[in-house]
Amino acid sequence: MVESHSQWFAETISPDLIQLSSIKASYYSGTTRYQKVEVLELGGFGRCLVLDGKTQSAESDEFMYHEALVHPALMAHPNPANVFIAGGGEGATLREVLRHDTVVNATMVDIDKEVVDLCKQYLPNHHQNSFENPKTTLIHQDARQFLENTTTTYDVAILDLPDPLEGGPAASLYTQGFLDLVKSRLNENGLLVMQSGACAPTNYHEVFPAIHNTIETLFPIAECYQVYVPSFAGPWSFVIGSKTHSSARLEEKYIKGEFARRKINGLQMYTETSHIGLFALPQYLTEAIKLEERIITELTPIYIV
Amino acid sequence: MVESHSQWFAETISPDLIQLSSIKASYYSGTTRYQKVEVLELGGFGRCLVLDGKTQSAESDEFMYHEALVHPALMAHPNPANVFIAGGGEGATLREVLRHDTVVNATMVDIDKEVVDLCKQYLPNHHQNSFENPKTTLIHQDARQFLENTTTTYDVAILDLPDPLEGGPAASLYTQGFLDLVKSRLNENGLLVMQSGACAPTNYHEVFPAIHNTIETLFPIAECYQVYVPSFAGPWSFVIGSKTHSSARLEEKYIKGEFARRKINGLQMYTETSHIGLFALPQYLTEAIKLEERIITELTPIYIV
Amino acid sequence: MVESHSQWFAETISPDLIQLSSIKASYYSGTTRYQKVEVLELGGFGRCLVLDGKTQSAESDEFMYHEALVHPALMAHPNPANVFIAGGGEGATLREVLRHDTVVNATMVDIDKEVVDLCKQYLPNHHQNSFENPKTTLIHQDARQFLENTTTTYDVAILDLPDPLEGGPAASLYTQGFLDLVKSRLNENGLLVMQSGACAPTNYHEVFPAIHNTIETLFPIAECYQVYVPSFAGPWSFVIGSKTHSSARLEEKYIKGEFARRKINGLQMYTETSHIGLFALPQYLTEAIKLEERIITELTPIYIV
Amino acid sequence: MVESHSQWFAETISPDLIQLSSIKASYYSGTTRYQKVEVLELGGFGRCLVLDGKTQSAESDEFMYHEALVHPALMAHPNPANVFIAGGGEGATLREVLRHDTVVNATMVDIDKEVVDLCKQYLPNHHQNSFENPKTTLIHQDARQFLENTTTTYDVAILDLPDPLEGGPAASLYTQGFLDLVKSRLNENGLLVMQSGACAPTNYHEVFPAIHNTIETLFPIAECYQVYVPSFAGPWSFVIGSKTHSSARLEEKYIKGEFARRKINGLQMYTETSHIGLFALPQYLTEAIKLEERIITELTPIYIV
Repeated sequence: MVESHSQWFAETISPDLIQLSSIKASYYSGTTRYQKVEVLELGGFGRCLVLDGKTQSAESDEFMYHEALVHPALMAHPNPANVFIAGGGEGATLREVLRHDTVVNATMVDIDKEVVDLCKQYLPNHHQNSFENPKTTLIHQDARQFLENTTTTYDVAILDLPDPLEGGPAASLYTQGFLDLVKSRLNENGLLVMQSGACAPTNYHEVFPAIHNTIETLFPIAECYQVYVPSFAGPWSFVIGSKTHSSARLEEKYIKGEFARRKINGLQMYTETSHIGLFALPQYLTEAIKLEERIITELTPIYIV
Repeated sequence: MVESHSQWFAETISPDLIQLSSIKASYYSGTTRYQKVEVLELGGFGRCLVLDGKTQSAESDEFMYHEALVHPALMAHPNPANVFIAGGGEGATLREVLRHDTVVNATMVDIDKEVVDLCKQYLPNHHQNSFENPKTTLIHQDARQFLENTTTTYDVAILDLPDPLEGGPAASLYTQGFLDLVKSRLNENGLLVMQSGACAPTNYHEVFPAIHNTIETLFPIAECYQVYVPSFAGPWSFVIGSKTHSSARLEEKYIKGEFARRKINGLQMYTETSHIGLFALPQYLTEAIKLEERIITELTPIYIV
Repeated sequence: MVESHSQWFAETISPDLIQLSSIKASYYSGTTRYQKVEVLELGGFGRCLVLDGKTQSAESDEFMYHEALVHPALMAHPNPANVFIAGGGEGATLREVLRHDTVVNATMVDIDKEVVDLCKQYLPNHHQNSFENPKTTLIHQDARQFLENTTTTYDVAILDLPDPLEGGPAASLYTQGFLDLVKSRLNENGLLVMQSGACAPTNYHEVFPAIHNTIETLFPIAECYQVYVPSFAGPWSFVIGSKTHSSARLEEKYIKGEFARRKINGLQMYTETSHIGLFALPQYLTEAIKLEERIITELTPIYIV
Repeated sequence: MVESHSQWFAETISPDLIQLSSIKASYYSGTTRYQKVEVLELGGFGRCLVLDGKTQSAESDEFMYHEALVHPALMAHPNPANVFIAGGGEGATLREVLRHDTVVNATMVDIDKEVVDLCKQYLPNHHQNSFENPKTTLIHQDARQFLENTTTTYDVAILDLPDPLEGGPAASLYTQGFLDLVKSRLNENGLLVMQSGACAPTNYHEVFPAIHNTIETLFPIAECYQVYVPSFAGPWSFVIGSKTHSSARLEEKYIKGEFARRKINGLQMYTETSHIGLFALPQYLTEAIKLEERIITELTPIYIV
């Protein structure tokens, strides 16, 4: 192990758990205005983007995360044309959005231009030239500021943000206030989807049920799902807030039809069957969601430790 | 991290991946006639049984594995009365089997008496006194030898075996020959279920589809499912071989009814909803199963590296 | 490596250096009134006493440290009869002192009775029953308090203390004030010796030269030496403060004679030749000692980070 | 720790000991015709050359090793003019040789041109342009082949070779046969010096005393010494074989005089005082040398595990 490799990437998953991955190559290591950035090739994981020591996505399994993040919400919208993405520096969220032939414009707002430029250069398999797609609008600005100053509205808003760490750049975006702002920029049938952190039996309670609870205060439909992402060392949760359409209740037949109509192909995880699996939560998560009482506001923030 | 704890348990998940967990207490460390045994309390995972350096089950999440191993097969049998378990030293598989009120006899055959005795002593939350249940028959013998010499037949056979490591004690039990022997000891509506190794995007190809393929040569119905187990550092796969009944196609309503009829309670993961999720595989696994051509025999064995 | 062992002890030597040793057995793990205590058997190092996560001494190489701590000072005194030891819980410093036939009384003051009791029980090769020697007086009290309240005086005082960590129990004993108190309890030809921390090229500057400088303000003779201790992951320094006799200038012939006269035997490191080697410092330490200007007082303390 | 850094270099010192150093930068990683090469900047150690996973020298403490390797032998020769170096790719051994004003020619034979070229590019503080010195002759050839085909003779031969690993490129150079070949190329007052592996209490017995014993069969004078090198995680041994002059018995006064006569300056470790310290071995090494009976020949090789 340690014998066959001499360079290792260590990620602290929790105070009691460290994951060591062999480093095959080190492409970049530096600090932008907002965060520490590393682009590494890790054994078994391929090229990885690491921000502030946390793996954001790995070449070998980012499809698990990005397909799960994008397609349940876009499928639930009858005709997603305008899509808003907050974060998503690698361009892989954008890549998945553009698979839907119905999409006319995808506006991605990521505050950190340097990170996006590094991803453009070092992660070609992530973005697959999505940044050059004529449907793409790329803006480097604070997401809140952007939304406050636009009158454009969207069919789907995708919040692909770093975890809410105390003092981190994304913590204030996991609040009722910001989510209400996003809602105000959604069209009539609009949906919002966001990554909502780890949801293993040992750590799901940190933020996931509270994010669901907060979204439930704003939207008539709030739905949770999960997918397992190896490079995140556990299952990952997502919450959808929807004005009209349920994603959880979509039928296999409908999804299959939309796959054809929207000319979607090239997926590695998401199918009409696995869609059902994403929403079929284990008992401990269903319970946690039911029992949760916390609502995340700027005055009562919740952080991941 | 390393600062807050000084003792760490290191498990080599693959040549490129090592998982470090803090050691809170060390209850036992020794070697039986068959294997190296450690009973440790790990930070975040609780009491763990470790055989030959591999975590077999952790107090905090063994329910994910054991509920997934037992209930899909038992639910698919209309009235499981006699159940056979190979392996399962911790007694947690036994515990789950005994939750079904229909079960009259559960025969557990584990070759390593010393391991079972250590589990009895150190893992009370795993077995919850299942070994003392009057329905339990506990035998310390080689599973193959036991089955060759019995005329008893069973409704469900559960193979809760260590991974097929080259030179390891379980490798010869992952073969067409042994599985055919198990089949010959099943009643008319009988089912067999076995754990079939890790199934993350990076390692599912090692044995899982080949085990499915092998079972498909023996049974009219062969079905795959998976569940994520944090202490195994990834999703875990299972294969069912069934003579008559499908588990994958069970309906929520039926499962809910059986929950009541069989007086099952106390589960943390498995519900009628999560049953559906277990079988809703991602595209990459469905494909892998379709494309697999290997059949595991004693002459063409397959090992986990 | 990580493959052949599953349990590892991790010691943070510096923010940039971690030493991992395999754990062969774990004898004790707990917390006394003063500190966290572990007694471990480490691969290659044998039984080790670990306080607050730092290895205090290892069975396989504690002789390097303890022989170096004790004999240079005792040899430099023409007839050491009464010896004072502060700290030294394992009993190995005591063991070395008692090798000198001239010693009539060895008074050891260690504040932590629980640690000493654990050492008595678990580290027989360290103390070799020195605590039962009729020449031994063992007292559990704060060293400063003991010296303030005694009128007894000593020929040699040995300060075998934990490193001066900020907030740690020993920091206030590395000050001019305390060292002056020790000096006041020394007889006419008396010497004091203390361990003064790591002295590798990368970390010698932390406290070692400052301790020498501080002792030089109190004693006419201040002398430094070092020895390499594998389980400390580097060379270790010591400072002698002496009223009359130089240890550095002792001649091989004299030491050889005293070995016979004092009936010393059983040593593994210290000889008349290696005595010379201890004091033959590399250029970078000689320079550092010359250039040092810091004096450690209670108002201007120095800590090891 | 692991928190403040995400990239770590892991070196297996023994099956029971792993040293982790933080990686500050990764300059090169590749494989030459002979070996795996990494050039890394490690926290606390500076720029390091790593061959086949083993640290060969670190910017922060290579002076400990290289000054100890070169000066004791060169000082013992009354007028070293022609010096032969086998290995020494970093150019630091060469740098130390060239400090002696008496040296007219330094011939360095290192088989691996690629490694030397990488050192020229990435390790300027190691070689300090020694390769460009007009007294230097640099040859890329097998050392044995070179010596067999030259009639040139040398005053001092320095064997700066990788450890004798089974199957490694240097193992056959640690034999009586090769050392006799080196001896045959030495002038009348000639000396040979070689690094002879780790010499901590836990591992000195592997090869060090056997190398001394082997050299003693060839030279009238065979002398051992050691120095501690932090980045090697322990003390390191050297053996001198000399035709006429003793290094161990050089007097401080003579060394001081030669320092002036040979216009040596810029040293960080070696002085007339530390020279004495190098040879003042601890009891356990003196004993081990006395008791050693192995002689290393091509038929009875000895490897480091």
